[in-house]
Amino acid sequence: MALIVQKYGGTSVGTTERIEAVARKIKGYVERGDQVVAVVSAMSGETNRLLTLASEITNAQSSRELDVLLTTGEQVTIALLSMALHHAGLKARSYTGGQVRILTDSEHSKARIRDIDDQHVRADLDSGHVVVVAGFQGVDEQGNITTLGRGGSDTTAVAMAAALRADECQIFTDVDGVYTTDPRVEPKARKLDRITFEEMLEMASLGSKVLQIRSVEFAGKYNVPLRVLSSFEEGGSGTLITFEDDSVEQAKISGIAFNRDEAKLLIKGVPDQPGVAHHIVGPVAAANIEVDMIIQNIAQDGTTDFTFTVHRNDYEKALRILEKTAKELGAAEVVGDDKIVKLSLVGVGMRSHAGIASTMFETLANENINIRMISTSEIKVSVVIDEKYLELGVRALHEAFQLDAEPKRV
Amino acid sequence: MALIVQKYGGTSVGTTERIEAVARKIKGYVERGDQVVAVVSAMSGETNRLLTLASEITNAQSSRELDVLLTTGEQVTIALLSMALHHAGLKARSYTGGQVRILTDSEHSKARIRDIDDQHVRADLDSGHVVVVAGFQGVDEQGNITTLGRGGSDTTAVAMAAALRADECQIFTDVDGVYTTDPRVEPKARKLDRITFEEMLEMASLGSKVLQIRSVEFAGKYNVPLRVLSSFEEGGSGTLITFEDDSVEQAKISGIAFNRDEAKLLIKGVPDQPGVAHHIVGPVAAANIEVDMIIQNIAQDGTTDFTFTVHRNDYEKALRILEKTAKELGAAEVVGDDKIVKLSLVGVGMRSHAGIASTMFETLANENINIRMISTSEIKVSVVIDEKYLELGVRALHEAFQLDAEPKRV
Repeated sequence: MALIVQKYGGTSVGTTERIEAVARKIKGYVERGDQVVAVVSAMSGETNRLLTLASEITNAQSSRELDVLLTTGEQVTIALLSMALHHAGLKARSYTGGQVRILTDSEHSKARIRDIDDQHVRADLDSGHVVVVAGFQGVDEQGNITTLGRGGSDTTAVAMAAALRADECQIFTDVDGVYTTDPRVEPKARKLDRITFEEMLEMASLGSKVLQIRSVEFAGKYNVPLRVLSSFEEGGSGTLITFEDDSVEQAKISGIAFNRDEAKLLIKGVPDQPGVAHHIVGPVAAANIEVDMIIQNIAQDGTTDFTFTVHRNDYEKALRILEKTAKELGAAEVVGDDKIVKLSLVGVGMRSHAGIASTMFETLANENINIRMISTSEIKVSVVIDEKYLELGVRALHEAFQLDAEPKRV
Repeated sequence: MALIVQKYGGTSVGTTERIEAVARKIKGYVERGDQVVAVVSAMSGETNRLLTLASEITNAQSSRELDVLLTTGEQVTIALLSMALHHAGLKARSYTGGQVRILTDSEHSKARIRDIDDQHVRADLDSGHVVVVAGFQGVDEQGNITTLGRGGSDTTAVAMAAALRADECQIFTDVDGVYTTDPRVEPKARKLDRITFEEMLEMASLGSKVLQIRSVEFAGKYNVPLRVLSSFEEGGSGTLITFEDDSVEQAKISGIAFNRDEAKLLIKGVPDQPGVAHHIVGPVAAANIEVDMIIQNIAQDGTTDFTFTVHRNDYEKALRILEKTAKELGAAEVVGDDKIVKLSLVGVGMRSHAGIASTMFETLANENINIRMISTSEIKVSVVIDEKYLELGVRALHEAFQLDAEPKRV
């Protein structure tokens, strides 16, 4: 018997038929003796329906009132799922964020959880109830309704699991786990049984959009074992996201992440003097453009080259800003390229295995793929390459690091 | 400057355009210096949409979860109206029933208000906000969401007005006030400027469905002046429902109410002995059929006749029950008629004016309208007549009591 917190997203509860399917799935866990807390999102389409109503009235919506509006979405789902659980013969009780008392700060639309009162939920579990909790929402000290921002239901699930010291937090989604890379790019991609939190963070931030980054951070902070599972397939064990410990597969590399939404900007021949990096990046950041990789070459002849990447949507805007900066600094040239991708090897095994980066570079060189930028961290190596080489690069690296094979235990 | 609680029903907030119109209406009150609390219902159609979702899952819905589901309807409206008020340049804050803290008992779907915490609402009013409150809903001691039952938004408005000691509670509806009778039956029907609570109770229960009876009782209990106004017309003063005091027009009769939904049942020749009334009405009540008028004739020859009226929908069912009872009692005959109507004169002036009933009977006799049943209370006289005479009877009485003329002050 285990205490499990399960999260079902908008697609999993998108119709009353799907809500009934979720109830049957939960019933399977209850029948094998588990205690279940189900955290649910709004039915898919509902949030957009509500946003449309709001936009018919004004585009300058109070974030407090927008939270009041949007939280009705999950409230509808908790009531319907509880009814479906009753219909399936189970005891069940629904809770809004405020009713659990998921206490947050007062930052409407992006509130952070401060505390969770587990008293009522625990009493209901102990008396044999399935507890159904509205995701994405909480309440501040003054009783105002808050939301955790888009995708916040994952965070609610992890936070509930942490508060209840649950044995596992299961995120039901439309994929059946985390893969070594995107199966649409490399059909030999293999589902991972386990992945560490740190790897998952790198995979998520690099574009493997299975889980919200914040919920993964949260799970890591509170030692909550997190499992990604498919809502629609039966019997799969998904991917367990866990701490690095003895039982973890000691593969060198867990996976290959990539991000197509990048663009790079290069400013050449800027004076190599203190403050120049700030002079270049400052105006970009001030324009609310997020800068990803930043590389500065070693200075030659008193000047240096400075390269960074931004989201492709911000490319034109960043280019204009940089051209202005170039004039101010008397730089030689500004060059941009929005036909690039970032490709990253991720794996905790890198820490103890030398030569990962050189194997990566060699593999790409063998395919005549030119590397434009390189950036490394403790558990990843990222390269920027021309967009057209993405699929070739992913497949070559997947092969070179034998990611299609089950890893050997070390 | 006055403190006004206004209630806007589902039709008044049925679209975002109408919500914007309500915001403009409220702005007019604020600009003349009033403090406004707006109590709103779910947008028309929304409650039925939610009920349909629930019925797709099960027809045996938990009343607790049904309340969780349905209360999202008003929560959407409070958010949208607050946004519309902001857009109109006003300060506004929304409150769910739980956020106000409208404390109720735990009778889901028909909860009764126990207490209202006016602290937050009053603070908001004092700082220049319009306060927007979700009607129909509350919360019990344990924090469960409850509803007051259909039409409960009127009750919420009156209860808020009582708690805040508001100067007036205004119920915005699709009629512009209370009339001496239904203008569709008697075009000369006149809008009343004032009517007493007691008269309004009689008018409401007799079928003038302008207000929920419970909210009128509530207003009377807590001395809340209640005004019925049109949502759609500008500038009308509606009808003020008030206590009987010196300023009230001392008309003999305020209005003529009628009810088309009645059917009557007669059981003839039952033994005139103790317990017989219970023996007849008991099984009808046990079948959940509400009995309206009950009349027992004076006994002759040791037997008596017993007549009562029920809602027309319950006619067939009541008839079958009565036939069974007749056999048990050895009664002579059971006769039923579902082509009847009840017609009532209502007025506090009756108390001090003799002869109202005889004028009524004379007027009907002059039109050859046969009276089938008569029942009187302190402020009303009701008669049951054949359905076909309804319009004729109403117009004749309206004329006889000069209801089209402004009343003289006494």
